[in-house]
Amino acid sequence: MFLRKMSNDEKAEQNVPPTEEEAVVDPWTVSGKVDYDKLIDRFGSTRIDDALIARFEKITGKPAHIWIRRGLFFSHRDLNEVLDMYEKGKKFYLYTGRGPSSDALHLGHLVPFLFTKYLQETFRVPLVIQMTDDEKFLWKDFTLEQCAVFTRENAKDIIATGFELNKTFIFANTSYFGSLYPNVLRIERCVTSNQVKGIFGFGENENIGKYSFPAVQAAPSFSTSFPFMFGKRKDIPCLIPCAIDQDPYFRMTRDVAPRLGYLKPALIHSKFFPSLQGPKTKMSASSALGAVFLTDSKEEIANKINHSYVGEIDGERSLEQNVAYQYLTFFMEDDDKLKEIGEKYEKGLMLSGEVKEVLIEVLDALVKKHQEARSAVTEEVIDSFFSTNRKIGFN
Amino acid sequence: MFLRKMSNDEKAEQNVPPTEEEAVVDPWTVSGKVDYDKLIDRFGSTRIDDALIARFEKITGKPAHIWIRRGLFFSHRDLNEVLDMYEKGKKFYLYTGRGPSSDALHLGHLVPFLFTKYLQETFRVPLVIQMTDDEKFLWKDFTLEQCAVFTRENAKDIIATGFELNKTFIFANTSYFGSLYPNVLRIERCVTSNQVKGIFGFGENENIGKYSFPAVQAAPSFSTSFPFMFGKRKDIPCLIPCAIDQDPYFRMTRDVAPRLGYLKPALIHSKFFPSLQGPKTKMSASSALGAVFLTDSKEEIANKINHSYVGEIDGERSLEQNVAYQYLTFFMEDDDKLKEIGEKYEKGLMLSGEVKEVLIEVLDALVKKHQEARSAVTEEVIDSFFSTNRKIGFN
Repeated sequence: MFLRKMSNDEKAEQNVPPTEEEAVVDPWTVSGKVDYDKLIDRFGSTRIDDALIARFEKITGKPAHIWIRRGLFFSHRDLNEVLDMYEKGKKFYLYTGRGPSSDALHLGHLVPFLFTKYLQETFRVPLVIQMTDDEKFLWKDFTLEQCAVFTRENAKDIIATGFELNKTFIFANTSYFGSLYPNVLRIERCVTSNQVKGIFGFGENENIGKYSFPAVQAAPSFSTSFPFMFGKRKDIPCLIPCAIDQDPYFRMTRDVAPRLGYLKPALIHSKFFPSLQGPKTKMSASSALGAVFLTDSKEEIANKINHSYVGEIDGERSLEQNVAYQYLTFFMEDDDKLKEIGEKYEKGLMLSGEVKEVLIEVLDALVKKHQEARSAVTEEVIDSFFSTNRKIGFN
Repeated sequence: MFLRKMSNDEKAEQNVPPTEEEAVVDPWTVSGKVDYDKLIDRFGSTRIDDALIARFEKITGKPAHIWIRRGLFFSHRDLNEVLDMYEKGKKFYLYTGRGPSSDALHLGHLVPFLFTKYLQETFRVPLVIQMTDDEKFLWKDFTLEQCAVFTRENAKDIIATGFELNKTFIFANTSYFGSLYPNVLRIERCVTSNQVKGIFGFGENENIGKYSFPAVQAAPSFSTSFPFMFGKRKDIPCLIPCAIDQDPYFRMTRDVAPRLGYLKPALIHSKFFPSLQGPKTKMSASSALGAVFLTDSKEEIANKINHSYVGEIDGERSLEQNVAYQYLTFFMEDDDKLKEIGEKYEKGLMLSGEVKEVLIEVLDALVKKHQEARSAVTEEVIDSFFSTNRKIGFN
């Protein structure tokens, strides 16, 4: 309907390979060479431009996050409206999530959470984090008991990024479903089988849980899904930071919202964190060589970064084709230093091996800090983030 | 897949009227002249024969219920196996349900509950009653708040039939969903979109909640859906008394059970309670003239019964074509008296008006008794049947 013209099943049946223009980007697959400009056109979202960044900085009174300024969070829906309301004193809440998996988290997984933490600190607003253990169960060959273990382990990593307990609620769908179900039903009634097939490319042989799951990911976009936090209020806006591949869920959600008398959630989209094997592909946990994990030692990090992709364009050095430099755009805070490295590399005053050395130090510090923070997250701390028996406030 | 060869949508598209052999019988529609023998063949269930009735009476030490002896509960799946296990000391639990609606209950609605009550008393076993408020919401144009009111009102009628509190758990799906969800997910993962389309005739424009709902009706068939009653035990057999139109749900459930390591639920099927306007059609609450309601006064009952259908076959009086007599087969306990009325009517020694007079007295007594019992059901009593904070035992 929005995203695809032909379902995966249909393409597979007809042996149609995705063309370059049709790079597959959906919540389960990112393949092909992603052109972000084309993605904005195809999805119908809006580019974050200089005017919006200026407005963001005016309202928050601070320079925007490096990931906004550097174009890594590059697209949005209604972010301007959320800022308008915030300026008038109407606070929103943040919603993000994770499909818990057995794999150790990699650097790419950290991006939405670090950015969400920045938003929480900047706007002083509540945050809900959905762990879609039900999704993992429906899509993969795990038991519910395994998914429950992944949820706890992954939550530990999320908490380690430094969320504020008294502003943050983490929930697993299987534990919190009783509270979500009323809104899940309301959403389900507005969406047909035909529509989810169009949006998500589901085939006839997909299980019926997958058909209804989009309503489960949509539900936390509405404040009435959290009665212990917001009572019966349905007028609290929601802002969702996520990678652009999650957008189909929220296009559906925004389509349904007015019919339920709810506000459309706003979104801010990130690009994909690139693989070590090349830019414009997404880092994947299933390829050990393609990803730096948050459990890696300095030696492992060094080994991976030293083997990372460096390419040229027309025989010229290219920052775009230098994965180590691309990673620095994510994790080197200092604008001047980053600019200097970029210029030196382009002029041949710095070897790609030297850029990699800089990155190895930056990543080692980041991973060590994360490992230390993670080891301090006890079972009691996890329980307290999952508890509904408390107040979560706006101040 | 099992029930239909062509979906409703497909038939509508192709203008195919249901033939007499293909009377539509599914959980939402009973139309056409129902031939119960053909239904048994089509559904693949088993007729309750004299040998099974004899075995039932031997094990319970009592005459079987009049509705079994008179063929109103006429079909089953694995009832013999449940009896075998019961004989060896292994008790089962009962599961039945109701889609709560705004309409006052009619006589036909009472049948499964009165029969379930008989089974509970006879076997001394626990019972769970599912109120599918989510189903009503997904299929009809009600709000969840309206469905919640219908649930309480209908539960009052159900409780009034006399279920034993310490053996009976009544739940609304929207309130109990947190506990059902793990089994709902397990079932959903085993059933494809294609399969529910085949079994239930869903079209492409049905909402996605309908697609997953069959898993919700299936879940209470497994004892692990009731941890507060049965802990983690998955070896407790389930027996489901229901009208035959609900069978598609449980064919699906039985298909899935072995793949989850669960027992297949057993079933005992009733015929439909006939409309006042003619035998072999189902009483419907949406036709005020076709149904005797549990709120009717004696005058209303008399007026309806006096206008009930009386037909002949080949110019001869026919008990089968006499709705008043058919109702007596449901509600007149005394076998000898029923037989006498039947014989006298057939021989012309009793007018159809006289048969109706007898029925009016029987129904008036039944409805009065129900109204009295219903008025004694307080909000506290309802709460206690819905409570999970208690023990529900086998003795």
